Amino acid sequence: MYSFGIDIGGMSIKIGLVDKNGIILEKRVIKTLNDPILAIKEMAETINEILKSKNISINDVMGIGLGCPGAVDGNSGIIDVLPNLGWENVKIVEEFNKYFDLKVAFSNDANVALLAEFKFGCAKNYKNALMFTLGTGVGGGIIIDGVLYEGNKCKGAELGHSTLVLDGIPCTCGRNGCVERYVSATALIEQTKIAMLENKTSLMWKYVNGDINNVDGKTAFECEKQGDVTAIKVVNNYVKYLAESMMNLFNIFRPEIFVLGGGISNQGDYLLNKVIEYCEKFNYGYKDTPKVKIAIATLKNDAGIIGASALV
Amino acid sequence: MYSFGIDIGGMSIKIGLVDKNGIILEKRVIKTLNDPILAIKEMAETINEILKSKNISINDVMGIGLGCPGAVDGNSGIIDVLPNLGWENVKIVEEFNKYFDLKVAFSNDANVALLAEFKFGCAKNYKNALMFTLGTGVGGGIIIDGVLYEGNKCKGAELGHSTLVLDGIPCTCGRNGCVERYVSATALIEQTKIAMLENKTSLMWKYVNGDINNVDGKTAFECEKQGDVTAIKVVNNYVKYLAESMMNLFNIFRPEIFVLGGGISNQGDYLLNKVIEYCEKFNYGYKDTPKVKIAIATLKNDAGIIGASALV
Repeated sequence: MYSFGIDIGGMSIKIGLVDKNGIILEKRVIKTLNDPILAIKEMAETINEILKSKNISINDVMGIGLGCPGAVDGNSGIIDVLPNLGWENVKIVEEFNKYFDLKVAFSNDANVALLAEFKFGCAKNYKNALMFTLGTGVGGGIIIDGVLYEGNKCKGAELGHSTLVLDGIPCTCGRNGCVERYVSATALIEQTKIAMLENKTSLMWKYVNGDINNVDGKTAFECEKQGDVTAIKVVNNYVKYLAESMMNLFNIFRPEIFVLGGGISNQGDYLLNKVIEYCEKFNYGYKDTPKVKIAIATLKNDAGIIGASALV
Repeated sequence: MYSFGIDIGGMSIKIGLVDKNGIILEKRVIKTLNDPILAIKEMAETINEILKSKNISINDVMGIGLGCPGAVDGNSGIIDVLPNLGWENVKIVEEFNKYFDLKVAFSNDANVALLAEFKFGCAKNYKNALMFTLGTGVGGGIIIDGVLYEGNKCKGAELGHSTLVLDGIPCTCGRNGCVERYVSATALIEQTKIAMLENKTSLMWKYVNGDINNVDGKTAFECEKQGDVTAIKVVNNYVKYLAESMMNLFNIFRPEIFVLGGGISNQGDYLLNKVIEYCEKFNYGYKDTPKVKIAIATLKNDAGIIGASALV
């Protein structure tokens, strides 16, 4: 049996045919449309094309899973709002069922990324797992006893919206000092720019060809590796913000594993080792409190498709 | 059928015979002993006395549940450490089984308090519930899908040990700025004392008969009700700390209900209304994000016995 995983993004929609081992057999990418009804029609056409090209019958497909950039309620059958796409009140199950008599499930994209890692990636063989996706914002995923935990009407698992710094940087959510404002790629870029403006001799200026608009999530890390004092400070602060945010969740959940995904996680072991080193110093409680394994997501850009397919 | 609930505290051990409706039929209190083996012997004798006095057969008892002041692992059968009692490595199930052929279960006291509220108190009829016990420290309880969630080796649910203030007040756990350091009764007393020392004309000095050692968790609240400006500031700050700590957990769990217990919760509706007012302003996300019901624990001092009895 197979299932389709669909990763809905602000710019593009990735559609993959996935087997029961989490292997993507074929993947296609279409442009995200502002009109959700039209977008669903195109997704349906693409599914049919993939089936045809792989010579697979619709009867061998268990269902269609979708990962969405927003706090959607999968139980409702309706996508209430995807702010970046302008989609509102989309009866997505009903629409898909116009094309296919299949189970259609959907969830938030960070949940789906964790589900992928949990079923087929670095969090396989664990029972309780958490995840941060460190991108434009900070997405969060929670798996408890092998099941995604999403909270009342799927509005929980907003791990990026916990205050790390009381009265800190204002957040888009209306509160101040949220984790997202300190550990997202956006936040790291902001931290890098502030440090550069205060230190005009930093190597980071050379790295970005003198143009601060070229700063990205790699700038500080790359120059830190070359010993730039300003970059070292930026990275050390960032690691502190990240590790403190993670340790809060360690004490709340004491999961077996915590997964780091998203753009910043591409630093791989380099970032991982720094975070582990920080966390080692502050393991809660007595000697018998188990440490939380920290891992970098392994499925990368395919996690969205694979995790979405695992919803059905 | 009945069960015994035992609430182990630093000074005393409360032992109650509880029916299936969570009603305590008889309750006795014995002194806490430093020697756990002797303490268990006395608990067993008390259980036998209660059975005799109520004319109930041991065959009608389902088991013995215990709430312990520490992060104990109920699955291990062994209490690893109760720091305030000096108990270490106590084979509590084995010891009790010397006296009774009954199921013996135990858990952390805050977990047990939430379980009591969940089965028989203010959190009845909900599925996902959280709790703060605002006492000397801050205990935390998590119920997910009707089941206590305790994390790996029961070392999770440490809701008091999440940083609210990065680089804030040092905590006994080794980190800085933990929730416990801002919202426990101990913290409120400290905040009250600091404010009094800065404001020698505050009504609070009169309230404590000029002796700062008389400050307790009620001082600021009582004087705030009488309009004392310094006390108003203390209470407003405390409510902010508490509400921000709670909202962090709202966004992480989005539970249906959040219960406040422990000494400070004796302020009842007066505290509740202030916390609700603060939280109303910052409900996460879009209009359809469900609000979390906030409630004051109703079982008070009996929650320990009732919740412990519900473990079996």
